[in-house]
Amino acid sequence: MTGAGIHPAAAMGTGCEVHPSAVVGANVRIGDNVRIGPGVVIEGPCVIGDRCVLEAGSVVDPGDVEGGDIIIEQDTWLSAGAILRGRLVVAGGARVQAGAVVLRSVPPHAIVAGNPAQIVGYVPSFAGERTDTLAGSGGAAQGVGATATRVCGVTLHRLPRILDLRGNLSVGEFGRSVPFDPKRYFLVFGVPNAEIRGEHAHRTCEQFLICVNGSCSVVADDGTHREEFALDDPAVALYLPPLTWGIQYKYSTDAVLLVFASEFYDNAEYIRDYTEFRRLAGVDA
Amino acid sequence: MTGAGIHPAAAMGTGCEVHPSAVVGANVRIGDNVRIGPGVVIEGPCVIGDRCVLEAGSVVDPGDVEGGDIIIEQDTWLSAGAILRGRLVVAGGARVQAGAVVLRSVPPHAIVAGNPAQIVGYVPSFAGERTDTLAGSGGAAQGVGATATRVCGVTLHRLPRILDLRGNLSVGEFGRSVPFDPKRYFLVFGVPNAEIRGEHAHRTCEQFLICVNGSCSVVADDGTHREEFALDDPAVALYLPPLTWGIQYKYSTDAVLLVFASEFYDNAEYIRDYTEFRRLAGVDA
Amino acid sequence: MTGAGIHPAAAMGTGCEVHPSAVVGANVRIGDNVRIGPGVVIEGPCVIGDRCVLEAGSVVDPGDVEGGDIIIEQDTWLSAGAILRGRLVVAGGARVQAGAVVLRSVPPHAIVAGNPAQIVGYVPSFAGERTDTLAGSGGAAQGVGATATRVCGVTLHRLPRILDLRGNLSVGEFGRSVPFDPKRYFLVFGVPNAEIRGEHAHRTCEQFLICVNGSCSVVADDGTHREEFALDDPAVALYLPPLTWGIQYKYSTDAVLLVFASEFYDNAEYIRDYTEFRRLAGVDA
Amino acid sequence: MTGAGIHPAAAMGTGCEVHPSAVVGANVRIGDNVRIGPGVVIEGPCVIGDRCVLEAGSVVDPGDVEGGDIIIEQDTWLSAGAILRGRLVVAGGARVQAGAVVLRSVPPHAIVAGNPAQIVGYVPSFAGERTDTLAGSGGAAQGVGATATRVCGVTLHRLPRILDLRGNLSVGEFGRSVPFDPKRYFLVFGVPNAEIRGEHAHRTCEQFLICVNGSCSVVADDGTHREEFALDDPAVALYLPPLTWGIQYKYSTDAVLLVFASEFYDNAEYIRDYTEFRRLAGVDA
Amino acid sequence: MTGAGIHPAAAMGTGCEVHPSAVVGANVRIGDNVRIGPGVVIEGPCVIGDRCVLEAGSVVDPGDVEGGDIIIEQDTWLSAGAILRGRLVVAGGARVQAGAVVLRSVPPHAIVAGNPAQIVGYVPSFAGERTDTLAGSGGAAQGVGATATRVCGVTLHRLPRILDLRGNLSVGEFGRSVPFDPKRYFLVFGVPNAEIRGEHAHRTCEQFLICVNGSCSVVADDGTHREEFALDDPAVALYLPPLTWGIQYKYSTDAVLLVFASEFYDNAEYIRDYTEFRRLAGVDA
Amino acid sequence: MTGAGIHPAAAMGTGCEVHPSAVVGANVRIGDNVRIGPGVVIEGPCVIGDRCVLEAGSVVDPGDVEGGDIIIEQDTWLSAGAILRGRLVVAGGARVQAGAVVLRSVPPHAIVAGNPAQIVGYVPSFAGERTDTLAGSGGAAQGVGATATRVCGVTLHRLPRILDLRGNLSVGEFGRSVPFDPKRYFLVFGVPNAEIRGEHAHRTCEQFLICVNGSCSVVADDGTHREEFALDDPAVALYLPPLTWGIQYKYSTDAVLLVFASEFYDNAEYIRDYTEFRRLAGVDA
Repeated sequence: MTGAGIHPAAAMGTGCEVHPSAVVGANVRIGDNVRIGPGVVIEGPCVIGDRCVLEAGSVVDPGDVEGGDIIIEQDTWLSAGAILRGRLVVAGGARVQAGAVVLRSVPPHAIVAGNPAQIVGYVPSFAGERTDTLAGSGGAAQGVGATATRVCGVTLHRLPRILDLRGNLSVGEFGRSVPFDPKRYFLVFGVPNAEIRGEHAHRTCEQFLICVNGSCSVVADDGTHREEFALDDPAVALYLPPLTWGIQYKYSTDAVLLVFASEFYDNAEYIRDYTEFRRLAGVDA
Repeated sequence: MTGAGIHPAAAMGTGCEVHPSAVVGANVRIGDNVRIGPGVVIEGPCVIGDRCVLEAGSVVDPGDVEGGDIIIEQDTWLSAGAILRGRLVVAGGARVQAGAVVLRSVPPHAIVAGNPAQIVGYVPSFAGERTDTLAGSGGAAQGVGATATRVCGVTLHRLPRILDLRGNLSVGEFGRSVPFDPKRYFLVFGVPNAEIRGEHAHRTCEQFLICVNGSCSVVADDGTHREEFALDDPAVALYLPPLTWGIQYKYSTDAVLLVFASEFYDNAEYIRDYTEFRRLAGVDA
Repeated sequence: MTGAGIHPAAAMGTGCEVHPSAVVGANVRIGDNVRIGPGVVIEGPCVIGDRCVLEAGSVVDPGDVEGGDIIIEQDTWLSAGAILRGRLVVAGGARVQAGAVVLRSVPPHAIVAGNPAQIVGYVPSFAGERTDTLAGSGGAAQGVGATATRVCGVTLHRLPRILDLRGNLSVGEFGRSVPFDPKRYFLVFGVPNAEIRGEHAHRTCEQFLICVNGSCSVVADDGTHREEFALDDPAVALYLPPLTWGIQYKYSTDAVLLVFASEFYDNAEYIRDYTEFRRLAGVDA
Repeated sequence: MTGAGIHPAAAMGTGCEVHPSAVVGANVRIGDNVRIGPGVVIEGPCVIGDRCVLEAGSVVDPGDVEGGDIIIEQDTWLSAGAILRGRLVVAGGARVQAGAVVLRSVPPHAIVAGNPAQIVGYVPSFAGERTDTLAGSGGAAQGVGATATRVCGVTLHRLPRILDLRGNLSVGEFGRSVPFDPKRYFLVFGVPNAEIRGEHAHRTCEQFLICVNGSCSVVADDGTHREEFALDDPAVALYLPPLTWGIQYKYSTDAVLLVFASEFYDNAEYIRDYTEFRRLAGVDA
Repeated sequence: MTGAGIHPAAAMGTGCEVHPSAVVGANVRIGDNVRIGPGVVIEGPCVIGDRCVLEAGSVVDPGDVEGGDIIIEQDTWLSAGAILRGRLVVAGGARVQAGAVVLRSVPPHAIVAGNPAQIVGYVPSFAGERTDTLAGSGGAAQGVGATATRVCGVTLHRLPRILDLRGNLSVGEFGRSVPFDPKRYFLVFGVPNAEIRGEHAHRTCEQFLICVNGSCSVVADDGTHREEFALDDPAVALYLPPLTWGIQYKYSTDAVLLVFASEFYDNAEYIRDYTEFRRLAGVDA
Repeated sequence: MTGAGIHPAAAMGTGCEVHPSAVVGANVRIGDNVRIGPGVVIEGPCVIGDRCVLEAGSVVDPGDVEGGDIIIEQDTWLSAGAILRGRLVVAGGARVQAGAVVLRSVPPHAIVAGNPAQIVGYVPSFAGERTDTLAGSGGAAQGVGATATRVCGVTLHRLPRILDLRGNLSVGEFGRSVPFDPKRYFLVFGVPNAEIRGEHAHRTCEQFLICVNGSCSVVADDGTHREEFALDDPAVALYLPPLTWGIQYKYSTDAVLLVFASEFYDNAEYIRDYTEFRRLAGVDA
């Protein structure tokens, strides 16, 4: 079985656990402490990072794509029967659900599922933590004012709402109910449902997000804690301080997201790499 | 016929032309150069300004409303079969279309039609002038930046729009593409279609209006010129300087109007009377 | 003018006030204390009850319909420019709004408006009273339990609502949260918007109404007081005791109204004539 | 009253019946046997054809339109309170419903109602006849084949329909189930709802009409008989022989009308005037 | 291969057929007469009942879930490539279609398919039997009254429906057309499409179910026979006697299900375990 | 491994490449030059044609279907983790995407994906060629007239379109803008979305296809070249000469396809087998 199982030209780190029924191809490089279950098939070219888990029956195969290879970064988990096919990267900490058919790259900490696989959430920052706080429909923030969250410096704001026979009105005052004087606003609209739009942090810019029509979700991450906020009410806002990693997704088709920013646009001010973000946020050395 | 026609206690100015079949009640005061057609019925208490026209078969009747009276200001035109009923004011320069049933007051220069009468437009500021500039769908303002309009100080702004497969983006910068630093924003949403929402000027407050979902129309008036702007694009904004009379209407059911204001809310800062507005704007003495 | 005005063959009661410009045809019979304004035209065959008011410019004309006549019962009010045409009955206490074009019969106390005229409400039971209580969206009945109304014996009930990830649940217990043990239920559905459905009282039957989908309005009337309830929530119910006149209308297109009744169906138990109802309710002798 | 009523400069035919309260202006010309009810107002310039009826309170006023006049052709009926305003023609045999506010011309035999007035049907060709035959949903033509109608030469065709789980199919064979070999087809689509599209006859061209999506109505008229056909089924067709006046209207917004024609397009072959059509069809001398 | 294939610590019954390429883990217990195809992978902890079939390439893996194990009860069939992952029970007689990704427990006799797997039907109670009776659209129950079904004591009721231009009406009488006097009603609404809502039997409570808006399906099972009823009509009801296993699913998004119950709510009265149900129903000893 | 891997009773052609971890059952017959990847499982009865590829982890299993077998014709490609189950034929040149669950037969050159697998396109006729030409929305055929395509004899026609405020019109003249005189028309409508409807060639009949409502796609294939045309415009037509293989699919739910045919219907004139078509078209000997 070893002959059929692990090709002699494959490279493997220390501390790995490989089921004898697994098949590993010639052009495969595997890191340390990787766990490979029964019936798993890994074709090359492929690189698998440290501490990854490939459960029973999962298949990794770049296939017949020119220059194609598959990179699975550290701490990624493939559940039973997951299929990865084509030239793609599964970024660190991602989770591929059982039976998911992954045909495109997966961002850090994302949870993907389905055929074809789509992002359905993000791995919470510690075990047992749920991310899906429904901000708009209730929770602690029922009165007017700000509420702290588990993510450092991020606050949820309930703004006044004036009901009127001629239409509803919601009001925010800069420097008062909005915690800063904005330099800029922007509107996000026409986003295809469930697509990711925005995944980065800012060095110095503060943001204040309001979903003025429809609904969307915002994941806020300080490098240590991560929380998801569903925005669906023009009288609810989310404040993001600098050095907060933000992800926006799960847009309804009619969603319009209004964002106030404390700084003018400066491309150098964006942090688009999650590893760099964690270093700047002081989480990783 | 005179006995039945014009009540002896009615007052009438000079240069009037009244058809002998018309009926004018006791408590009616009519200005100069008014033209009253056949079959017209005017019940009091009622005041009709100079140069008004009441075509055949129109009916003016305050009815059984306590303290009710009808005021028809100068230069108003009632087409054939128009009906005015209840305590109301038809402001100067308005036009009531044939068969319209008017149950509420009509603002200056408005054109009303239907049963019940609704505002369908505004009389343009001079002959041959059209008001319905479609701002969003094209016109001069195609590039990014501000464009002057015929209304003093009012500018139309085309904001950057970043098209992206993941969704569109539009950006405005306060003190830059937005011509002031706002103290306040408000959102108007859930407006019943076609209703008027906002009809006033500000003494010192500047405003910047963007229809971020759906569509609505804004009429801007400096006392001398009047222009209508159809807003239907999140990347188009309308700037209104102080002492601009603004009207918002023709909301689509899904419309969300975002307004930036340069001042905190101050009720004393609003001008809600068009005559006072014209005086403050220096148009009328 | 008299010759043109009132036809010699017309009959008129005592205490009437007819403007000299009004025109009354040969085959017209008018009750006592009727007020007829300027420019009014009444063609026969037509009967007008006591204390009716016909404001300026209203037109009553059965037209060229075989056997056609118009009956306007006592205490009816036609506002300015109202038009009645065809074979029809306007029942007692109705109100025809200005410019309304009435082509079909009008029930007691109804308010009609528009072209063609439709029922838009019911005349409240005393001056200054509003009928449109929005039961579902708030008001006093926020907790679970029953609330009294201004109509004798009618109560509004808020039922428990159990939220569940798999769907919502609302529960009522007969003889407990529902004030009687029903003998019968019925469902009303597929009602064209704004149409009247049900207009009668019961001699002995109690009812408990819940709008389980969409929305509708119920007018409850004890002969002295009348109140309107908008039902739009499966956890809100309306209890009607015997000898309550009930009207259901303003159905949304997706409305489904569930009604519990304390008795089996018995046609003899229905009171379908409002005059008889008031007598049985002890209001009129 | 005569002085106020009928202007001396008005012209009137024989056999007319004018209520003494009616008002007729100077520049009005009225045909024979016209009936004018109480409270009617007619301003000039205006021409009214023979045998017209103007019921109580109707108003005819061209208003302040340059070169404006109103022409009401023979056999037209205005119900109580109808209002005609502006430069327009009401063609022969039309019917204006009570309270209708007519601002545009009305075609022959059309029935108009509402504010503003819209075409709601066509006057049937003789008393008691209904025009709204629902061709698609049933009627005599249930089997495959052609069915005669009351209009000379016009036939209704039910074509084979093959139902299939994979989709439906309807088939026609030229010279067989379609009664001629076409030279041309055309498709009508994107028609604004309820608008008239096509109102003419052909001298030599035969037509075969199928509403392949949505629905529309076709009025066919041989000069003597008139019938309306609601087309709403791709397996139902209407054949129009030469010298048939055809009207298409009541298009649903998704309607697509497919027409086969026996001749190539020739403008000279169209008859666009109803009077000329009746002469060519041998109905009028 | 045996070494790689079946772990020595695995337990297996008699009469099993295991392909040599299959992999069976240490903590797996397999019953009698089980058939395991080529390429199948079974990780423990896992229990597989008698007479189960696991076709080629199917994967059973509890994965890294605390206390997680998989129980596959007797007579279950996994088609080719089926994936079971997580802590779950596949109840007796279920059928997992090819490629289905099962992440949650599967109820008795259910058929599941897709990624993630959803219930698409139920295995009928004997070969050749179909479960999907469309109750609403026709069938035997066209007249008013009750119809027996193949499930013991379950009856389908067609209630009177009064068609009326003003709206439709459906009526039920307790103790008459409804076979009991209810103590309670409840409404189910806002259910996410296709989700299961309710899967249990009652010891003493009778139920009467009506889908008053939208549609849903009810499976009724007496332990021996099973039948599915599609409810889509407010005039159709399903009566469930005590000791009937009921399943509700396939809710449309606008579904509102009305249920009458003969008893007040008593948690002890529910039977939530199918095995216990069959014992109480006298089917199994 | 060989013992477990390839059953001695399996038949295999020359030039095959089989990974030692693959499992091939007894009743399997494999052609020449077939490539079978790691972890692949093939159960019989099954026939696999020349030059097929089965990537890692794919499963082929007819399962427990009476008389069931799987036929995979030449040049078919199964991507990683593909599952084929049941009695079915995958026709020559098809492509099964990664993780696709195929439960029904697949036509020649089709691309299938998803769970359950559906047709998402057709393999283009040579490498690098795209099939999805959007005919309606632009391309070369913007003027009126015919445009050649890459498929022999097939032309794309842009017909005159007359835009009009009263509605749009599109016209074709037989023997002129339509290249033949039709004997027959047929309409295809009510097609379930994405279903294939029509997949055949004609020996002598010419066709002219117009999608007069909604949209659909037509694949035209001369045996050597294949091209896909998206039809979504009533003024665009596709001409198919005799001996062209045509496939219609991707119907929108509101699609209505109008087809003119140069011949009356004759079943013997249809070619329904792709292999026979290629022979008749002179492509294969």
